[in-house]
Amino acid sequence: MTQFDLVLVGYGNVARRFVSLLREQQAALRRDHRLVVRVVATATRHHGCVDNGRQVSAASTLAFLRDVVTRRAAAARDGRLVVVETTTLDIARGEPATSHVRAALAGGAHVITANKGPVAFAYRSLMRAAARSNRWFLFEGAVMDGIPVFNLARETLPLVAITGFRGVVNSTTNFILTAMEQGQPFDAALREMQARGIAEADASLDVDGWDAAAKTAALANVLLGARMTPHDVSRRGIGASDGAAAIAARAAGHRLKLVVRGQREGTRVVAQVGLQQLPADDILSQLDGQQNALILTTDLLDEIAVVQRGSGLTHTAYGLLSDLVSLATHGPATRQSPRSAPPRRSPPRQPRRT
Amino acid sequence: MTQFDLVLVGYGNVARRFVSLLREQQAALRRDHRLVVRVVATATRHHGCVDNGRQVSAASTLAFLRDVVTRRAAAARDGRLVVVETTTLDIARGEPATSHVRAALAGGAHVITANKGPVAFAYRSLMRAAARSNRWFLFEGAVMDGIPVFNLARETLPLVAITGFRGVVNSTTNFILTAMEQGQPFDAALREMQARGIAEADASLDVDGWDAAAKTAALANVLLGARMTPHDVSRRGIGASDGAAAIAARAAGHRLKLVVRGQREGTRVVAQVGLQQLPADDILSQLDGQQNALILTTDLLDEIAVVQRGSGLTHTAYGLLSDLVSLATHGPATRQSPRSAPPRRSPPRQPRRT
Repeated sequence: MTQFDLVLVGYGNVARRFVSLLREQQAALRRDHRLVVRVVATATRHHGCVDNGRQVSAASTLAFLRDVVTRRAAAARDGRLVVVETTTLDIARGEPATSHVRAALAGGAHVITANKGPVAFAYRSLMRAAARSNRWFLFEGAVMDGIPVFNLARETLPLVAITGFRGVVNSTTNFILTAMEQGQPFDAALREMQARGIAEADASLDVDGWDAAAKTAALANVLLGARMTPHDVSRRGIGASDGAAAIAARAAGHRLKLVVRGQREGTRVVAQVGLQQLPADDILSQLDGQQNALILTTDLLDEIAVVQRGSGLTHTAYGLLSDLVSLATHGPATRQSPRSAPPRRSPPRQPRRT
Repeated sequence: MTQFDLVLVGYGNVARRFVSLLREQQAALRRDHRLVVRVVATATRHHGCVDNGRQVSAASTLAFLRDVVTRRAAAARDGRLVVVETTTLDIARGEPATSHVRAALAGGAHVITANKGPVAFAYRSLMRAAARSNRWFLFEGAVMDGIPVFNLARETLPLVAITGFRGVVNSTTNFILTAMEQGQPFDAALREMQARGIAEADASLDVDGWDAAAKTAALANVLLGARMTPHDVSRRGIGASDGAAAIAARAAGHRLKLVVRGQREGTRVVAQVGLQQLPADDILSQLDGQQNALILTTDLLDEIAVVQRGSGLTHTAYGLLSDLVSLATHGPATRQSPRSAPPRRSPPRQPRRT
């Protein structure tokens, strides 16, 4: 039986659902994965920091995290300490999430995160840090919630070279475009997404395409071996003025979608987020409301599409849960190395099994 | 570095492409998976049996296989002997493939197969045999070629309960239906599929729905914990007389598709293959020609769809290759156990990692 001690950095909706999901799955975790999990510390910017049940004053979540990890050197040394990163993202810099991940790995903790910031801004350097500490950095929930994307590439597509991708990966903009097609105003659709807790706290992150650009950078870094940040992604968002085009596209049997793309071009990777009018028989055309999809272009298997047909907090929390099971299954993370940059062809997994 | 000795049982198009793919991927297998592979014996019904480069006379492929495995007891004991099963299937009984798999496991060999017969007819008993011998029985290529289906469930969806599935999994019938929609005659479309090597040697296996029924039984057994054979699947095929319905469906903006379904109903699993007229916004409606797709219904992630957009021999051969890498990655197969029958909720993986 393995026992993981969890340190939660960020304790918003996702982290809370993760904790309740852990409770629901407690018996199955024990039975099927010989895993016992307990939360030992929690750090939030607004509600303060708690370690071992006691409120602790700290200069910042980062300072608190460093202290907590240091105090748990024994669990860290045994590979039983896991930092769960779910803080709110500053899209301009990928912080404070990236610093949290770096500090956790430096202290010998594994890191699992539903945050796209670290992998979008610093994938390669964080993978190196994880390798130095012989720990895992996992982030399945960063794109399409718990639907296997990074795990799919790493665990199920050995030897396959991924040469490009396209998809719809931002639920808020897809919901708004779907609503505007039906004549609903932009603002009302956006407010509905915020009321449901789907839209980012800062709506501009979604509607200006920043969330999609961060996910695009994450996908490009991990699947295509790129070295980019969201600022390197050519980006276009949506606004109220796109309503007429959405209605016109639908009337012509097409759909207007905010499509992300990444592609190897020689030794470079190019990536963009943009509005596209898609024919009805495109898989991405069928995505209504909050549905997402990703189409991978590969050498051996042509195109493979993965479609997320539902959504919600449980999906995102499940991304963290599946990362936690990966930790328990894989054991210590030796031989981790980030995927090579193009054009070398190599498998899309980076942390290898031992 | 691990060395696998392969025994090929069946040496048709799929096995030949597998061997050439092994050669193409030789360097990557060595570099990324520390794996060296060589073919030590080949058994075919028509061209005889070859062991270690020498033609051998044998009463049957099964008798030859037993001899080959016995002569390689040392490799079997070390978990380095792998039988690759790709013989032609007798759909009424799942033979000779099932007997081949059973003999190989009994002799201590791992088995990988692109054959749907063994998993459709005898999944549970073969998994028990694999567990007794502490070896793996893997079959990724049995449904949707090398596109991750069984690996997806086993490796990337821990703790998720799959409650049902639906999909389009037979390329020949989908190609014929797509052709008939456009006014082409049934026979011409079928001949084209046979000329391309896609249709089964015995065309009735495809057009009468037997291939789809075998895949449905395989999916139901593995993903839903059913105990069924293809004979337990309610089945309907397609014929020339469905052309008018296909044209009419298309004219109405719909598509006529041969849809497979499996679902838990209380403690039972029900499964069927049948023609359905689907609305245009159904994912399965978009599948043209040889494209396949599978939609899983789950508890934690709602519906997940996986779409195979290309096809061909390389896809099928890749299913075997990914199984081979799974063997190398997972090591010896301790703690294997078939997935429980409904209604117990448990994860969809059966061979567990060690």
